[in-house]
Amino acid sequence: MTASSNLRVNGQRLWDSLMEMATIGATAKGGCNRQALTELDRDGRDLFVRWCREAGCSIDIDAMGNIFARRPGRNPDLPPVLTGSHLDTQPTGGRFDGVYGVLAGLEVVRSLNDAGIETEAPLEVAVWTNEEGARFSPAMIGSGVWSGEFDLDYAYSRTDKDGKTFGDELQRIGYRGQTAAKARPLAAAFEVHIEQGPILEQEQKQIGVLSGVQGMHWYDLTLVGQPCHAGPSPMEGRRDPFMALHRILEQLYRLAEDHGPWARVTFGDIRAEPGSRNTVPEQLVLAVDLRHPDQQILNAMDHSFREIAAAAAAEVGVEASIRDEWRSPAVAFAPQCVAAVRESVADLGYSNKEMVSGAGHDSVYISRVAPTGMIFVPCEKGLSHNEAENAQPEDLEAGANVLLHAMLKMAS
Amino acid sequence: MTASSNLRVNGQRLWDSLMEMATIGATAKGGCNRQALTELDRDGRDLFVRWCREAGCSIDIDAMGNIFARRPGRNPDLPPVLTGSHLDTQPTGGRFDGVYGVLAGLEVVRSLNDAGIETEAPLEVAVWTNEEGARFSPAMIGSGVWSGEFDLDYAYSRTDKDGKTFGDELQRIGYRGQTAAKARPLAAAFEVHIEQGPILEQEQKQIGVLSGVQGMHWYDLTLVGQPCHAGPSPMEGRRDPFMALHRILEQLYRLAEDHGPWARVTFGDIRAEPGSRNTVPEQLVLAVDLRHPDQQILNAMDHSFREIAAAAAAEVGVEASIRDEWRSPAVAFAPQCVAAVRESVADLGYSNKEMVSGAGHDSVYISRVAPTGMIFVPCEKGLSHNEAENAQPEDLEAGANVLLHAMLKMAS
Repeated sequence: MTASSNLRVNGQRLWDSLMEMATIGATAKGGCNRQALTELDRDGRDLFVRWCREAGCSIDIDAMGNIFARRPGRNPDLPPVLTGSHLDTQPTGGRFDGVYGVLAGLEVVRSLNDAGIETEAPLEVAVWTNEEGARFSPAMIGSGVWSGEFDLDYAYSRTDKDGKTFGDELQRIGYRGQTAAKARPLAAAFEVHIEQGPILEQEQKQIGVLSGVQGMHWYDLTLVGQPCHAGPSPMEGRRDPFMALHRILEQLYRLAEDHGPWARVTFGDIRAEPGSRNTVPEQLVLAVDLRHPDQQILNAMDHSFREIAAAAAAEVGVEASIRDEWRSPAVAFAPQCVAAVRESVADLGYSNKEMVSGAGHDSVYISRVAPTGMIFVPCEKGLSHNEAENAQPEDLEAGANVLLHAMLKMAS
Repeated sequence: MTASSNLRVNGQRLWDSLMEMATIGATAKGGCNRQALTELDRDGRDLFVRWCREAGCSIDIDAMGNIFARRPGRNPDLPPVLTGSHLDTQPTGGRFDGVYGVLAGLEVVRSLNDAGIETEAPLEVAVWTNEEGARFSPAMIGSGVWSGEFDLDYAYSRTDKDGKTFGDELQRIGYRGQTAAKARPLAAAFEVHIEQGPILEQEQKQIGVLSGVQGMHWYDLTLVGQPCHAGPSPMEGRRDPFMALHRILEQLYRLAEDHGPWARVTFGDIRAEPGSRNTVPEQLVLAVDLRHPDQQILNAMDHSFREIAAAAAAEVGVEASIRDEWRSPAVAFAPQCVAAVRESVADLGYSNKEMVSGAGHDSVYISRVAPTGMIFVPCEKGLSHNEAENAQPEDLEAGANVLLHAMLKMAS
């Protein structure tokens, strides 16, 4: 282990690979538009596959287009240690979200090759298809099918806004593989990712050691009142959805405070019907997003939300109804994987913070079928899903070093 | 005056005329869709003109398509006493808004004919073009041009959503007249209208004696924050427009209470940009409608609104800006016209309430160039701009009787 404990990745090579991949779908504003199953996605995949083959890996592609690049271990019967993320981007995405996790995995392989180190268990670098959900909804569908969350037929029938299906587009770009898209035993799975939030930068920590992923509940709250003319109708008798709205907003922000600092309450969208300037709206529809890393607390927030909405609506004679749009339960990562990351960070001497992810990642689904852990590195101003997305080369290198050593711990 | 003081309109004939006019543009739900300068509007105008000619009136049509049906007086040199309203409706409008004021005027003429009463001054029944503003914006443009509020060229250049101009459509339906659309001396102008609000019905009063019209200010309030991801971004550092919104809503409702019972605060529309469920919006745009019958109080409300928005935005690090969309100053009707209505109601023994109009009417513009008064009758549940709009025949008859006697007072 002496040889490997001094081992470091080649940060310059990692950066150069990131910048070369970023030319595929590069936007004028310095970002990336490489949406899932487009020709640009194919070009990115082709480049990755070529690099992996050059690094001595075998390539397997499953029926979802998930790519697995395998570096053999001394014992081919051992389950592999996997790392991976995604190569697809948002339409106005950045150069690091997803692609960093894939190319950091490749850099781990290249660094081990350089050092002539053979691991006991095989290593794999995975590319998960359509993580972003930008072209085909839902998000994380590649890892989702692999983990048993979605059926293959369901995935194939998803359409983009032009009506093209996922299955046809996957075939068209040549990445519909023969292997079943189905979980198999893994010793461990890791994912390194930019934080997509400002915490590490603000606290000047280089590495985030993730204990899990926030649970997320999405709702549509509908408030139905009685439309009436803005002028003749006295204030007193109105059944005005806005009168319920401000009470609900205020109390939900207070709910977030009560469950701080990890609770999140976000209202991303609102619309009024009929939306006429001089008419009290018949209804308001508000998009509500509640998050907490502790599922029990998130459940309590869910309960409070329903009580708050019902009480505020009743107070002003409006009807409130809540539609559950989507739920992603809170994830606690495998203790042995969290420990492997934590110990690697300690060995390497990086400043760090134990935290949870506020965003969804392929690791959420992977964690249902394999021991999983995640590593974060700072991203500039917390900006992500944005062409201005940026990260420092030294932080990206540090994250890859943590990944390298966490994988080595689990593969020995 | 003995003959005329016992005079009453024929309520059944008024009702029958209303119901016959309502067949033009009748909707399946019992309402009316007779939008300005459509062929249905032309059919409604043609029917009105025929009825007026049958009642011995001469017809004059001005360059805005405003129709003036004149019943001669003993002294043709006296300025006429005018009454009128509009025949156009909202797309899902009712059978009474506007058309009642026109046909009540016609019923006044018919009743005087029946009784063989000649007035000293001539009487006129006016149809004002495009009061609703539903097809061509702005509303009340026919009376607006006539009163000098808008230029004729401006009115002609207004387009509907298909790009057709007001001028072309007016020509097409054959109602672009030769007479200048320009105010001329009037002894008085009256308008009888359904209340479009619930006050008379709730207080069980048959007649509203109007002292004026609320002043109205329309604004767009824009709150600009910093978009960020719903999950990774801590609540504390967010610059979230919704956090300013609920403070502003709450304080503006309190402002309405402080200036109750006549102050009105209405939020008719709101939209979020980019409107993504899991992103704090970059901006919210809220439509704000403030009203009060006393212009000084309305000005104070305007001032408070600006202070409230600025303070709430500053509190949460959001930028607030206010765009003035439209203003209609408070109107105080001519004392002699208000007195004529009040005395007529007293003579006729109807239950009544002195009130202001919360909605705009052609009388707002007419009042700038002629002594003006208005009369309200109850409308069911206060519903208007709605196919379910309804009024009781006996109330419509009472309103027409008040109009008859107020016009007689001013024409003698």
